[in-house]
Order: sequence, then C-alpha cells, then structure tokens
Amino acid sequence: MQGITYRGSKEGKVLKASFTHQRLEPDEVVVQVTHSGLCGTDLHFLTQDMALGHEAVGIVKAVGASCKLLKEGDRVGWGYEHMSCGVCPQCLSGSDRYCPEAKMYGQADLDQGSFSNIGVWKETWLFRIPDGLPSEYAGPLMCGGATVFMPLVEYCRSIDRVGIVGIGGLGHLAIQFAAKMGCDVVAFSGTDSKREEALSLGAKEFYATNGFEDLSKLGITKPVDRLIITTSSLVNLGQYYPILSPEATIMPLTVSPDMLVAPNQGTIVRGIKIIGSILASRYIQNKMLEFADRNNVRPIIEKFPMSEQGINEAIQKLKDGKMRYRGVLSWDY
Amino acid sequence: MQGITYRGSKEGKVLKASFTHQRLEPDEVVVQVTHSGLCGTDLHFLTQDMALGHEAVGIVKAVGASCKLLKEGDRVGWGYEHMSCGVCPQCLSGSDRYCPEAKMYGQADLDQGSFSNIGVWKETWLFRIPDGLPSEYAGPLMCGGATVFMPLVEYCRSIDRVGIVGIGGLGHLAIQFAAKMGCDVVAFSGTDSKREEALSLGAKEFYATNGFEDLSKLGITKPVDRLIITTSSLVNLGQYYPILSPEATIMPLTVSPDMLVAPNQGTIVRGIKIIGSILASRYIQNKMLEFADRNNVRPIIEKFPMSEQGINEAIQKLKDGKMRYRGVLSWDY
Repeated sequence: MQGITYRGSKEGKVLKASFTHQRLEPDEVVVQVTHSGLCGTDLHFLTQDMALGHEAVGIVKAVGASCKLLKEGDRVGWGYEHMSCGVCPQCLSGSDRYCPEAKMYGQADLDQGSFSNIGVWKETWLFRIPDGLPSEYAGPLMCGGATVFMPLVEYCRSIDRVGIVGIGGLGHLAIQFAAKMGCDVVAFSGTDSKREEALSLGAKEFYATNGFEDLSKLGITKPVDRLIITTSSLVNLGQYYPILSPEATIMPLTVSPDMLVAPNQGTIVRGIKIIGSILASRYIQNKMLEFADRNNVRPIIEKFPMSEQGINEAIQKLKDGKMRYRGVLSWDY
Repeated sequence: MQGITYRGSKEGKVLKASFTHQRLEPDEVVVQVTHSGLCGTDLHFLTQDMALGHEAVGIVKAVGASCKLLKEGDRVGWGYEHMSCGVCPQCLSGSDRYCPEAKMYGQADLDQGSFSNIGVWKETWLFRIPDGLPSEYAGPLMCGGATVFMPLVEYCRSIDRVGIVGIGGLGHLAIQFAAKMGCDVVAFSGTDSKREEALSLGAKEFYATNGFEDLSKLGITKPVDRLIITTSSLVNLGQYYPILSPEATIMPLTVSPDMLVAPNQGTIVRGIKIIGSILASRYIQNKMLEFADRNNVRPIIEKFPMSEQGINEAIQKLKDGKMRYRGVLSWDY
C-alpha cells in the first residue's frame, strides 16, 4: 500500500515523502486521512526523520479479516498513542495510556503520521467520530482535547472552581469542556489579548498575569480549587499557591524535559495535590468525543492545506505563538 | 418574638396559628420568610400538629451576639435539616446529613416551619442565596434541588448517561442539573404528557413507561449508566435492570416506609450499585445554590399566596399530581 507522508528533516523543514505499508494485518484498518490537527508536541519532532502528525481524522477504506468494530465508510480518528500491550496492570485496569509497552508518537510507527493521505492502524486504537462532530473540529480533539478532558473528568467536579492557565490549543478547549461541565471557570493568560475570547468560550473570570510576581495581587475574587496548566513552557507553580484553596489540585500538562518545581512547605501544610496526566485512556477518548458532540464543544481552528507549504506555514505560525487556537491541515482545503 | 405559622391538623387541613420564640440565642438568626417551596414530603405531615414547610427563603432581620457569617439584610434559606451535633464521625467527615443527632423536619423544631412569616434558626444552618438567583426560584432548591444535586455530584460524571425516573418537583430539577453538568440525560415518565418539557429542560431522550412490563422493549438507544429515581411512590427497580449498563448505579430517592426490592442475581452478576441518599451536606447545599446561579438552573414554579387558602390549594394540586412542577408560597403573591 502506497501513501504520501510529510516528514521531519535535519533542518526542521517538513518534506513530502512516500510511504509503503507491506500488507494489511487481520486486526488493522486502512484510513484515508482527510484532516489533521497540528499539536504543540509536533514541534518537538521537526528535526527527526519521521512521519509527523498525530491528530488524524479520516474515512475507513478497508478493514482486516478479523476486524469487528469498524467498516468501510466509518469516520474515525487516531491520536498520540497507537497501541498498548493489553495485559499489564495498567492495561488491565483501564489505564492504557500508562502501559510501559505503549507505542507512542515519536517513539514507534515512525513511518506513519497524520500529515499524510493514508494510515494503517490497529482497529482497537481508532476512535469513531460522532455524526454531529465535523471532521475539521474532531482533529484537534484527538490529542489536545483528550489531554485536557482526562484530568477534568478524573479530578474536577461540576462544583469546582477550575483555573485554566494558558489559552492556546489546549487551554481554549479546557475552558469549553470545564464550562460545559458546569464548573466555575477562571482563565489565566500572560496578557489581556485573549480576554474576550476566553470569556466567550465560557470562562467566568479572566486574569492577565504578566508583571505580577505575586498573583495574590491579581485581585482574584475567590481561590481556585483545581488548576490545569496548559502552557507550552513550564510556569512558576509557586506563583499560583497564594490563590489556591486548601487541598487544591494542580494538573501540570506542559510538555518539558525540565524539573517540576513547587514550594515544599506550601504543598504539605495545605494538602496541595500535584497530579501528572498525559493523553486520555481509550474509554475516556471515546467519551470525550461524545461529550464534545453532545455539548457543542468546538475548537477554534485555522485551516491550512495538507501540503509541504501548508504544513510549514502552519508550523511557523504555531512557533510564532500566533495560532488561534489550533491549526488544522486538510486535503480539501 | 411573635410570628405566624401554618400548621397541620388531625383533619389534614392546614390552619393558621401563632408562634412565640422566647429569645434569640447568641448563635441564632431571625429570618423574615418571603417564600417557601411546597415539597412532596410536606404531604406526609399534614395530619400532625406541627408547623409545616421546609424550603424557606427570606431576609435576615436580626443576628445573635456570636453570629459571624450573616448580617441584617442578607438573603438566606433553610431546608429539611436544622442542626447536627458537629462532633460525630459523620459530622467530622462532612456528612452532616447522616448525623444520628440531626434535627430534621417533622422530628424536631416542630413549632417552626417555612409556611410562616418568621423563622429563628442557627446561623450555621442557614444558606446564603447567590445574588443572581431570585427568591421564588431558590425555595424549591432548598430541599428538592439539594436532594437531586447531591447524588449527581457524588456518583455521576459528565461522561455518564444519566436516567431520571419521574418528572416532578425533583425530577425536573435533576434533568436540568445533569444536563448542565454535560451528562447524556434520559428522562422516564409514566405517560407522554411531560415529553416536550423534559426535552426542553435538557433531556436528550424521553421514554413513556406505562404499559411496558419489560423496559427493554422501550427501544432505548443505549443502556443507562446512572439511574436517579425521583417518583413519589416506589417503582419496580427490576423493570429497569434490562436497560442498565454493567456496573450501573441506582439512586432511589423516593420517600416511602416500604421495602426496597431489587433482583438479587441481576445486582450481583452485573455489579449494580444501589446507593441511598437523602438531602445534601451543607457544603454541597451551598455549592448547589452557586451551581444553579452560575448555570441558570431554574425550577418551573406555580405561585400561591402564603395563606390558609393558598397553602391548602397548593397542597390539593400537589396531591392531585397536577403541580408543574413545584408550588411556591409567597407573601408578596
């Protein structure tokens, strides 16, 4: 099976390439990609010689002999994780995202990405897109949406005051999800430039943090029970401690190789919880798509053609911090 | 302190009476009642010689010497529970609604009810009404709203498919709360008469159950994960088992002295959970009022004057099953 992919290169420029998949295994499905989201994580792999992209949406074109869930014509997507072992304690308890043998983007299946026209994947790692959810909106949900939805479902309740730090690809989805769960949503961004949009997405309050060493001086009306950090680089966690409730939970989602640093005494004395989280389990990934469909959660997207030029242009815009809020590459641009 | 109350009587007719409160204790607050909801539970006490009503909203007129939270002019409400001991395991772990020494409506403070012009209560058992929530809508939330909100917060997630059985005073609030939490809400009622209203309140599907012995024949699209039963008399739980998910949770809220009867084998083999729940803890009562304000949850009410005639008329309508959906008694009718 022949396909087109767009790969990273030493120079960090995305280049068109071809891709051959030897044969369709019985448990595999062929997906004709129609759309792909562009995720901040993709920027980490630009200089690798690998097929890029991991927020795919497309149409099933063929299914292997043992497939049972999907059929030709179904609309599906895939995300950052492609496979888990199925038998480790994590897999057996529904936490397939923490399977030690998981195949993740950038680590396995390097010849296949969502910047492509075709993908061949295990049937059980494809996610059906609900009928009411347009493909161009489903793309950014496959990784970005899943990543913020999971900690909202696991650690936030509809009665909580939920702070979202960073209003980008992830943050603008987190605001919508939390608001549609009925939470009291507070948005934090460096500057005021995203104030109106954050409020229109469902935040009840917005605070611009640049220039404040001590966030207790922001004039926030009430402390925050849950803090989801979606910034592209690590924030100073301690800055937020003065505006947290006792027993507040912090969920840092920033992808960074650096150390997570937090006030020791402030964490212990007030029972603050810091909980790591990445991606979503398959169960929650499906529930997230249904939730988005049912409650009309829609990424704000900028569309680009699925081509060398389109992809490189989208990447540049994302690097420049100008994407509002998620780039989507499309074959029918 | 002198006040008017409306009391039950042997004949089941509500009669006007007077009420004297000897003195204001340091931890007590005087509330001038403006509105009261009429709850199904009130019907159980009509023949008792006691002051009726337990969904009060009013204005603080005076506070005792040691009060710290409220001041004259504050808008507050009270509900079914008036006091807990504060030191038992339940109180110490936030479950004040299960305190063995709790003072409940119909069991303690029998000379004071919300069908009255004045109430004198412990400051710590009064609940502040958020500014955006009109008093006439706050009334039905004080018991009915709290009773359905608590199990929704404790046992339902925004990703769950939540069935609400019975579309009355409690059910029509449960639909709204669950929908505003983003849940997939399914309403069950005897007949089709409330279909349109249930859907407009946020249910995605509605099923009329009369005439179906076997509810698997309702044609329901997907099984239900959580089932909240709000009917005024007990339902046949087993009827619902065929349409429940494995590991579903049933929350029976019906007030009845009869036995709760469920299929033994069906419960064990599929891991069904049956969880009793009454009222809300004070913490959740406050959060419920904030949630209702923030997410625009509003009871559908019928107003009656706070008078012998008004109260008896409202009671008759409730008894006849014709109230849509909550009667509210008001001094400024």
